[in-house]
Amino acid sequence: MAGSIFGTLFQISTWGESHGPGIGVTIDGCPAGLPLSEDDIQLYLNRRKPGQSKFATQRKETDKARILSGVFEGRTLGTPISIIVENQDQKSKDYRNIMNIYRPGHADYTFDAKYGFRDYRGGGRSSGRETIGRVAAGAVAAKLLLQLGIQIKTYTKSIGPVTVPEADYDYACIQENSLYMPNNNYAARASDYLETCISNQDSSGGVIECVITGMPAGIGETVFEKLDANLAKAIMSIGSVKGVEIGDGFLAAAALGSSNNDSFYIKENTVRKKTNHSGGILGGMSDGSPIILRAAVKPTPSIAQPQETISKNGESTSLTIHGRHDPVIVPRAVVVVESMTALTLIDMLMINMSTRLDYMAHFYK
Amino acid sequence: MAGSIFGTLFQISTWGESHGPGIGVTIDGCPAGLPLSEDDIQLYLNRRKPGQSKFATQRKETDKARILSGVFEGRTLGTPISIIVENQDQKSKDYRNIMNIYRPGHADYTFDAKYGFRDYRGGGRSSGRETIGRVAAGAVAAKLLLQLGIQIKTYTKSIGPVTVPEADYDYACIQENSLYMPNNNYAARASDYLETCISNQDSSGGVIECVITGMPAGIGETVFEKLDANLAKAIMSIGSVKGVEIGDGFLAAAALGSSNNDSFYIKENTVRKKTNHSGGILGGMSDGSPIILRAAVKPTPSIAQPQETISKNGESTSLTIHGRHDPVIVPRAVVVVESMTALTLIDMLMINMSTRLDYMAHFYK
Amino acid sequence: MAGSIFGTLFQISTWGESHGPGIGVTIDGCPAGLPLSEDDIQLYLNRRKPGQSKFATQRKETDKARILSGVFEGRTLGTPISIIVENQDQKSKDYRNIMNIYRPGHADYTFDAKYGFRDYRGGGRSSGRETIGRVAAGAVAAKLLLQLGIQIKTYTKSIGPVTVPEADYDYACIQENSLYMPNNNYAARASDYLETCISNQDSSGGVIECVITGMPAGIGETVFEKLDANLAKAIMSIGSVKGVEIGDGFLAAAALGSSNNDSFYIKENTVRKKTNHSGGILGGMSDGSPIILRAAVKPTPSIAQPQETISKNGESTSLTIHGRHDPVIVPRAVVVVESMTALTLIDMLMINMSTRLDYMAHFYK
Amino acid sequence: MAGSIFGTLFQISTWGESHGPGIGVTIDGCPAGLPLSEDDIQLYLNRRKPGQSKFATQRKETDKARILSGVFEGRTLGTPISIIVENQDQKSKDYRNIMNIYRPGHADYTFDAKYGFRDYRGGGRSSGRETIGRVAAGAVAAKLLLQLGIQIKTYTKSIGPVTVPEADYDYACIQENSLYMPNNNYAARASDYLETCISNQDSSGGVIECVITGMPAGIGETVFEKLDANLAKAIMSIGSVKGVEIGDGFLAAAALGSSNNDSFYIKENTVRKKTNHSGGILGGMSDGSPIILRAAVKPTPSIAQPQETISKNGESTSLTIHGRHDPVIVPRAVVVVESMTALTLIDMLMINMSTRLDYMAHFYK
Repeated sequence: MAGSIFGTLFQISTWGESHGPGIGVTIDGCPAGLPLSEDDIQLYLNRRKPGQSKFATQRKETDKARILSGVFEGRTLGTPISIIVENQDQKSKDYRNIMNIYRPGHADYTFDAKYGFRDYRGGGRSSGRETIGRVAAGAVAAKLLLQLGIQIKTYTKSIGPVTVPEADYDYACIQENSLYMPNNNYAARASDYLETCISNQDSSGGVIECVITGMPAGIGETVFEKLDANLAKAIMSIGSVKGVEIGDGFLAAAALGSSNNDSFYIKENTVRKKTNHSGGILGGMSDGSPIILRAAVKPTPSIAQPQETISKNGESTSLTIHGRHDPVIVPRAVVVVESMTALTLIDMLMINMSTRLDYMAHFYK
Repeated sequence: MAGSIFGTLFQISTWGESHGPGIGVTIDGCPAGLPLSEDDIQLYLNRRKPGQSKFATQRKETDKARILSGVFEGRTLGTPISIIVENQDQKSKDYRNIMNIYRPGHADYTFDAKYGFRDYRGGGRSSGRETIGRVAAGAVAAKLLLQLGIQIKTYTKSIGPVTVPEADYDYACIQENSLYMPNNNYAARASDYLETCISNQDSSGGVIECVITGMPAGIGETVFEKLDANLAKAIMSIGSVKGVEIGDGFLAAAALGSSNNDSFYIKENTVRKKTNHSGGILGGMSDGSPIILRAAVKPTPSIAQPQETISKNGESTSLTIHGRHDPVIVPRAVVVVESMTALTLIDMLMINMSTRLDYMAHFYK
Repeated sequence: MAGSIFGTLFQISTWGESHGPGIGVTIDGCPAGLPLSEDDIQLYLNRRKPGQSKFATQRKETDKARILSGVFEGRTLGTPISIIVENQDQKSKDYRNIMNIYRPGHADYTFDAKYGFRDYRGGGRSSGRETIGRVAAGAVAAKLLLQLGIQIKTYTKSIGPVTVPEADYDYACIQENSLYMPNNNYAARASDYLETCISNQDSSGGVIECVITGMPAGIGETVFEKLDANLAKAIMSIGSVKGVEIGDGFLAAAALGSSNNDSFYIKENTVRKKTNHSGGILGGMSDGSPIILRAAVKPTPSIAQPQETISKNGESTSLTIHGRHDPVIVPRAVVVVESMTALTLIDMLMINMSTRLDYMAHFYK
Repeated sequence: MAGSIFGTLFQISTWGESHGPGIGVTIDGCPAGLPLSEDDIQLYLNRRKPGQSKFATQRKETDKARILSGVFEGRTLGTPISIIVENQDQKSKDYRNIMNIYRPGHADYTFDAKYGFRDYRGGGRSSGRETIGRVAAGAVAAKLLLQLGIQIKTYTKSIGPVTVPEADYDYACIQENSLYMPNNNYAARASDYLETCISNQDSSGGVIECVITGMPAGIGETVFEKLDANLAKAIMSIGSVKGVEIGDGFLAAAALGSSNNDSFYIKENTVRKKTNHSGGILGGMSDGSPIILRAAVKPTPSIAQPQETISKNGESTSLTIHGRHDPVIVPRAVVVVESMTALTLIDMLMINMSTRLDYMAHFYK
């Protein structure tokens, strides 16, 4: 339980350091019969690939996925799917000067506190490259969900102080700007803000939002394994995420019950809600409305300004980080949030299948 | 995996419906040798007991804990500790009129969607009484943590629009007001606000904050089992919680890297941070600073106002909820947040023990 | 992970010491909709109840089961089912003289080695009474299996040197003799053997066999979670079991491939095997034939003869065990083997439901 | 939970089909600080490599291990260790003729029953090559155990009817004969027996024995997670294993308590037993004596004789298997048994570390 395995029935096991030979993931529990190719995975990986905009690290990586097992004649076998991405542009020399220094906002110190030593090159296992395994597996989970009629839309809601209000959402724009915002004007403003950050040798955080449609009602367990609880863990496990909320989230804390309750009604023989303050989850189970979650992402800790810190030996020192760093990681983290969401949903859908005796009896009749 | 079991090494298994014979929990994995009595558990249960203030349900329950196993001659044996609390004041008749109606903001509909039917009396398993098992186990976890020098302080940060600013915290006040706020003046204002809610047949949400001191650095795993990820799941698994944040949380999304990074320095031979925006966690591991988390709690969905909803048969209806309900559950949820936090911390501390070969070799030499 | 929890989707959590207030189990993950009463559980508990024959301990226990949660209006809710059995006839004084002595063949020494101290009264948690929780849960699992057309028959194959050959099996006899043997003549011989054991102040072991019919093909996972692997763990986790085999078991080690292979053929449109050396499992998955397993049970370690041993302080001593002990535990363990088998089967059937995309798509369409 | 993941704290995740690009394993939870090289793993892999004797398949595979992550500057980092072995000598054409035929004794039919289709080339995931992942991880576990003073010796106890009696054991011989038997004379007799099998186009089973020394007392949990229960699962999860026993195993079923009980005594201040019928485990916990287990391995199902069977379409057919098959797999399975044993032991040793409060308090003081 060193924590690189995720899931109960749809389980993934990720591995790889930033500057080792590669990064990978093994999926155990993918149902048999899903058409799957390396292109399916590449589509997702490309969304987090470095070097695609001026706001992302200029490290050059093709991040090409290879499937090593679990797929036969174009379909998943039900056996483990091993996916590997080789590292190519490791400039380990960049990291010599910080091998004994604890970068503020990074895991250098906590890694040493835990293990006694660490792979200092590019953050090692706590590099953003760790998310390659999540995204490769997320692509598979998302493809499964689509087969069940479940769709996930994920985008940048805010960058620093620039927030797109819900009224201004235009989902068509998400793929049109390099920040993955659902409004191109706000994206332009956010770009300006980021330019300022860069010129100030500074970095920005932001908020990612995710909307899931098509989820049947009743998915999620009722006590510790609530759907929202598992989503919270999945999202908070992404490096740099400092907060998670469902539906109205922190705003609900200041609301009145009379306005926060969503009234039920019937339309076309299905149960609906007049509003969706709950964000699609009641009592830990999906309620049939769109599921809405948000993740707060902290500013990239690697900034070019000089910073005060200490060395491994406990000496005070001033640190100036060189190398290739993102002034904001939010846009590249969008697909990571989507992937962790997909992984959580497919797992809970699988767990839910044995919930009722009548369903089991029908399945095994 | 119906989700009433929590934890990896320190595992708890809870059971019980609101109007059944009782509620309970079994702890599997409590280390041997902890002095433990029913009083230790009662202290925690009393903090969530109903009927203690005008802002809590008037249901009368002594919530008396009995230990049925796992303790011998006053100390834990290392074997499962079974704790039971009998239900006494079940007024099931109160619920006849809503047995076929889906209360807005409750889990009635989602329970039916999942299982086909439900125990409608008092919310059954999704009643607030479900938390008795969490709190009884949390009392044991917290006692263990104290033996390791780790202390958890939990309190109400806000009720509706009334928020205590950090500058006005006085921890000594927490036990002095029935809302468990760290400032009696704000508590008085919040009481006034709640009076208004009651007279308007409405309810309020709020924010609970939790501060952990004494946690050694390096606790938490580095990828999916991050300390903050597990805390997020633990807290979000509490009914009515809609958001969780660590350290600066959602504020960090709008911050700059230069201000959000916490500089390291050395004092008295230990690594410290000049600020604590990270909330005591870096890269998923404790960094030695106080761990800070917040939970957003939605307003109690049971309000006395008439509400529009539907019946199980899909007919529109108006619902007026009678019975004994809290206008705000935040104060009673404080100890639940503390309990879930304690359960998470002790589990991750146990998992961490096998992290290094030198420690293992020393342990088994 | 102190190991009193068993199962992945159908999970049970047991608790209780021999001389504490009671013994119990909580089932988490029982599907909703199963008709269930205390009588269903009592039927199973009665099969392991003490005092029913001269070959079983004379401790008087009614072993009356109470269901405390998870059942509403006669059906399972899908929520945890808590079952409790009170201890009544605890004669703890019997154990004073052995509180500091390590009984040969018992867990006294290993308990102390692990935990530093132990509940010495009646073996505490390692008493045979621990199996009450397994059997109560097994009764529920077996009832579920029956609804899916799966039946388990369990019986005593041998007591000491008296073995019933397969050719002489008459399943109708199993309930006719107190040793649960499938042949009354052999049961009479075994009784004679046990009388001799008693007069010699000695005890006997034996072999329990279990046959499962109606299991669909393809159940069990292909690598570590093989059906036989999980059965082996389940059975070997029963105190006193020292060996487990499937189908021809150890005999297969001496066989030739040409005779050990089972030929496939088709009858009534289903795949069948001409022989069943495999014991119904191929590659870790059920093959549609009856599943056959055997457990080797060691002789009861509590014997009335004086034995040489040591005290907790390391002093040599001679021990004479008084109290109420079974000269053979095999007959009472029959229902324990059946219960552990049932728990394993239902869990693997549930896990199997998400194995194929076409099944999932049909389930969620 | 498709079952290619094993362990609780020391977790391995294996992947790979016989005729895919490769086979691999990821270890999550290896403590930091273990010196580890590819040579350490190669030593173990070489013991199961094909083509080393006339009794093993002549498939040519170098089975060269590459470490892709988790090791830095020669030591384990505490992060996942990914190990990959490329497949080289895949003669998939050999399998064309059996792609739609169910081989007796193989998992062809059960794979189809479970998943609807399968990778028919060389058994796909149920090939013996699947064990490469187990052995590569087992090498790491065994190296860790050695650092804790724990040693595992594994050997062939019998091949078909040729059994080495314990009195004739000479451990020095194990590496001297290609059958890994602890006596060269018996090995010669077994070779003769195997020659006869080959000339008869037949195959043989056998028994593997494993002895663990240096295990501290008290390891293993007391109810479901007994040390012997976990060993039984680990060993029974190896393809072709049909039985597992501990200590006297099935012989204990026929023994008397007076002879089966092991008397305790003290020597050099440690608790010892005059005999070891228990096989080093009492009440599910190690008792400080050598742990002894045996695995019954069935004859290789691939034999050159014509066999009656059916096709996927349900037609009767006669099958003659060509290709490269072992007349006995026991010698190559020796290291697999050793590996699964090592994996189980290290995991239970890690789990045991949080068993006592005094140990935890000392660890975290």
